[in-house]
Amino acid sequence: MNQPLKPLTIKVHPTDNVAIVVNSGGLPAGTVFNDGLTLREHVPQGHKVALVEIALDAPILRYGEVIGYAMKPIPQGSWIEESLVRLPEAPPLESLPLATKVPAPLPPLEGYTFEGYRNADGTVGTKNLLAITQTVQCVAGVVDYVVRRLKAEVLPKYPNVDGIIGLNHIYGCGVAINAPAAVVPIRTLHNLALNPNFGNEVFVISLGCEKLPPERLLNEGGAGGVPIKVVSDDVVCLQDERFTGFQSMVEAIMKQAEVHLVRLNQRQRETCPAADLIVGLQCGGSDAFSGVTANPAVGYAADLLVRAGAAVMFSEVTEVRDAIHLLTPRCANEEVGKALLREMAWYDDYLGRGETNRAANTTPGNKKGGLANIVEKAMGSIAKSGTSAIVDVIAPGEKIRRKGLTYAATPASDFVCGTQQLASGMTLQVFTTGRGTPYGLEAAPVIKVATRRDLAARWHDLMEVDAGTIATGEETIEEVGWKLFKLILEVASGRKKTWADQWGLFNALAVFNPAPVT
Amino acid sequence: MNQPLKPLTIKVHPTDNVAIVVNSGGLPAGTVFNDGLTLREHVPQGHKVALVEIALDAPILRYGEVIGYAMKPIPQGSWIEESLVRLPEAPPLESLPLATKVPAPLPPLEGYTFEGYRNADGTVGTKNLLAITQTVQCVAGVVDYVVRRLKAEVLPKYPNVDGIIGLNHIYGCGVAINAPAAVVPIRTLHNLALNPNFGNEVFVISLGCEKLPPERLLNEGGAGGVPIKVVSDDVVCLQDERFTGFQSMVEAIMKQAEVHLVRLNQRQRETCPAADLIVGLQCGGSDAFSGVTANPAVGYAADLLVRAGAAVMFSEVTEVRDAIHLLTPRCANEEVGKALLREMAWYDDYLGRGETNRAANTTPGNKKGGLANIVEKAMGSIAKSGTSAIVDVIAPGEKIRRKGLTYAATPASDFVCGTQQLASGMTLQVFTTGRGTPYGLEAAPVIKVATRRDLAARWHDLMEVDAGTIATGEETIEEVGWKLFKLILEVASGRKKTWADQWGLFNALAVFNPAPVT
Repeated sequence: MNQPLKPLTIKVHPTDNVAIVVNSGGLPAGTVFNDGLTLREHVPQGHKVALVEIALDAPILRYGEVIGYAMKPIPQGSWIEESLVRLPEAPPLESLPLATKVPAPLPPLEGYTFEGYRNADGTVGTKNLLAITQTVQCVAGVVDYVVRRLKAEVLPKYPNVDGIIGLNHIYGCGVAINAPAAVVPIRTLHNLALNPNFGNEVFVISLGCEKLPPERLLNEGGAGGVPIKVVSDDVVCLQDERFTGFQSMVEAIMKQAEVHLVRLNQRQRETCPAADLIVGLQCGGSDAFSGVTANPAVGYAADLLVRAGAAVMFSEVTEVRDAIHLLTPRCANEEVGKALLREMAWYDDYLGRGETNRAANTTPGNKKGGLANIVEKAMGSIAKSGTSAIVDVIAPGEKIRRKGLTYAATPASDFVCGTQQLASGMTLQVFTTGRGTPYGLEAAPVIKVATRRDLAARWHDLMEVDAGTIATGEETIEEVGWKLFKLILEVASGRKKTWADQWGLFNALAVFNPAPVT
Repeated sequence: MNQPLKPLTIKVHPTDNVAIVVNSGGLPAGTVFNDGLTLREHVPQGHKVALVEIALDAPILRYGEVIGYAMKPIPQGSWIEESLVRLPEAPPLESLPLATKVPAPLPPLEGYTFEGYRNADGTVGTKNLLAITQTVQCVAGVVDYVVRRLKAEVLPKYPNVDGIIGLNHIYGCGVAINAPAAVVPIRTLHNLALNPNFGNEVFVISLGCEKLPPERLLNEGGAGGVPIKVVSDDVVCLQDERFTGFQSMVEAIMKQAEVHLVRLNQRQRETCPAADLIVGLQCGGSDAFSGVTANPAVGYAADLLVRAGAAVMFSEVTEVRDAIHLLTPRCANEEVGKALLREMAWYDDYLGRGETNRAANTTPGNKKGGLANIVEKAMGSIAKSGTSAIVDVIAPGEKIRRKGLTYAATPASDFVCGTQQLASGMTLQVFTTGRGTPYGLEAAPVIKVATRRDLAARWHDLMEVDAGTIATGEETIEEVGWKLFKLILEVASGRKKTWADQWGLFNALAVFNPAPVT
């Protein structure tokens, strides 16, 4: 790894009055930059230095946006530690311009393909997995037992099947199933079963007395969802009187699982246009570099995907809330803009009922990494969305409906966002991280992009892409974006395995349940 | 299984105007009972028959309590289907008698012991497990990987250790960590680490940027909790700069895990008085028999445990809410009574914020099993508590503080209640079920008690105790209660394995998080 020798800062926008320190380990007091700026004190890596004197209550500008107001006069060359930054109000949702600056369609990008598994419903998977849907957590122990036995005794007979996974969750009973917000987890579980990586082979294990019976799970997909039709053998109910004990349940489930394995095993990867991809974008453990290295590179790759005709989702409500005024103008039409505002308002209300707000999003790690508050974090987060028009907005757990860039509203929690994007149909995820996380999903490959060179170097067997080269000037955003785009095609084709897939590092599903448990 | 030949009903209390049908499959119209009562229509098993004519709006009485009001005139011998029953209001919390009928201490029961693992903090475990605490779900994939390797490569060297478990959860980040209700999941995770079955060997894996850092998890145990002191090697932070990649993290975790395994392996079971038990009580998939067979038998066993000096917890707020007027008089003093009311009010408010109420508790299976509504369910549920004084009330996730009968407030959701009781220190759980569930916990043995003979017979390799014999008159509540008490001692001693332990049927932990995710 080439550490730049010279003291280096990054100023994102011409109007910014702060820049962030690039150098690993930070820079000491007295450091003099090329332009003559001198540090008055030690500034840690990723943290902000005042480029000019900032008066009390004056705006602090990064990304050309007000990320806060000075709590006291800040001399030029000072470290702008988070306690010096007063959090602005979130933009009011009532008076935002909708679809006023709709980006022109990007030039089409032809000729890029991947090797995918084409499904009967027209979607294309990047993996060929048998997924076992569960109406309720009660059955998870039985499903886990069956999955262990299937993997050991049966799966070796079906070499074209990539794996068998139980779609474990903690929903389905002991919850307020008719509370207004219960629509979210119900449609999430419905649409999860239909993820393209599961080959349209829906197989449901039910207990029999749960609040979410199979009929309801199969029928309530929400907007963009369709009822799921299955044969009766594909719903195994453990309380069914035909079962005489646990071993008879296991036998029935294993038998029916094999019906699906036989069909899945007959599938072959085929060449598909990149337009058949459904890519989810997420960040976790963000730092001040996220918005200048990894996320812009992902945004560039998102534009390439959109140009190639693919579907791309960005998410994380609390991380777009403070940047919403930059997104509503980009919506393809007023209706999409209103849907975006509706999701913001819904989440404001959800957080309010818990006596909190979007500012609860930032973590100690974000702050250590230089992010003063949620506004600064949001400005970096939305860089993932690239520059194309937002063509659709879907509520948490709804199925994606359009090609191009969709805003899929989800919590920002890594595991919850990942689960919700899987429900929306994501077949591959790109995940950026500044602090570092070993995040992975069993249902879809996750490509991890490091924001900093030192993280990428240390976590060499966990990170796929090093976007830190953008900060050091070794590569451009475009170069890393193209590299990522090509890697997406490789991973989607099964030609390249992610580290998470190689080590088997998978986070549990975490279905978003905004309603109470009972 | 001896099915009684004669038509049989059970009337619980002398003042009841309904009874439930015992016979498997129900009884047909025209059935004549010993006392001359004739069925006007088919009545399913467990469902209520009107013993007398019940006028419009007249109370329907079971357990000597009003479980509802007649929606229309109900002739004698009719099936009281749930739609005929109007739900009463929940008892108001303001004017209930506190500690007015405190039961006299039950006669001590001497001489009962079990073979347990005594811990340095004075608690006694029923298992000898290495548990790996996690601050945040981000690390779960790594922990799972390490647990797989430890089990395969290391555990065989330590035959006295019963197992290694990762305390996986979906909390720790992406949550409103400073919302008022966040105290619940934080103290739950804190106290989980201290469960007596983990031998006081606390070992924490942290990511490094999460909202719930190790210091906070280790320090915030809530009432009854104490700060956890660990050596620095017992907190492994994956973002620590000493790690050069995934494999170096794995190496460090495995090395430190072995330090704990060596110590755990030196432990031996020793004879302990039954007073050293901490038993949790729960029901799931309840039916109309729950309150007349399994739960009263469990209540009898609870009394035996209390007489032997043990700690016993009953829980499930929405299943005691409608019976609260029967519990507040039993509280040992006014302070305990007020704490009980405080927990009820907290949960009323929590449900109200989600636009629902305690009536959301009942499931389709409960209703199929004859329970008309939450009032009838609650009357049956509290039978588990036996007859002793309620000596203490703890909030969700707090550590148990006293011997005798404690009310541990938790949701009624099986997996959430189980997790919260583990956090409160439960070392063995007794779980009753009428509809049937394969529920199990990895951290503590779960003894499952069936409410009906036919369930116990069909699920012969999942249920430990058949309490259906009480309904058929083959055994008394006392007999089944004693049988269960003795089985508790056997299972706690490791001499008898539960079916869930034998098959490895374990539900995931489900930490109660009443606060929003971000």
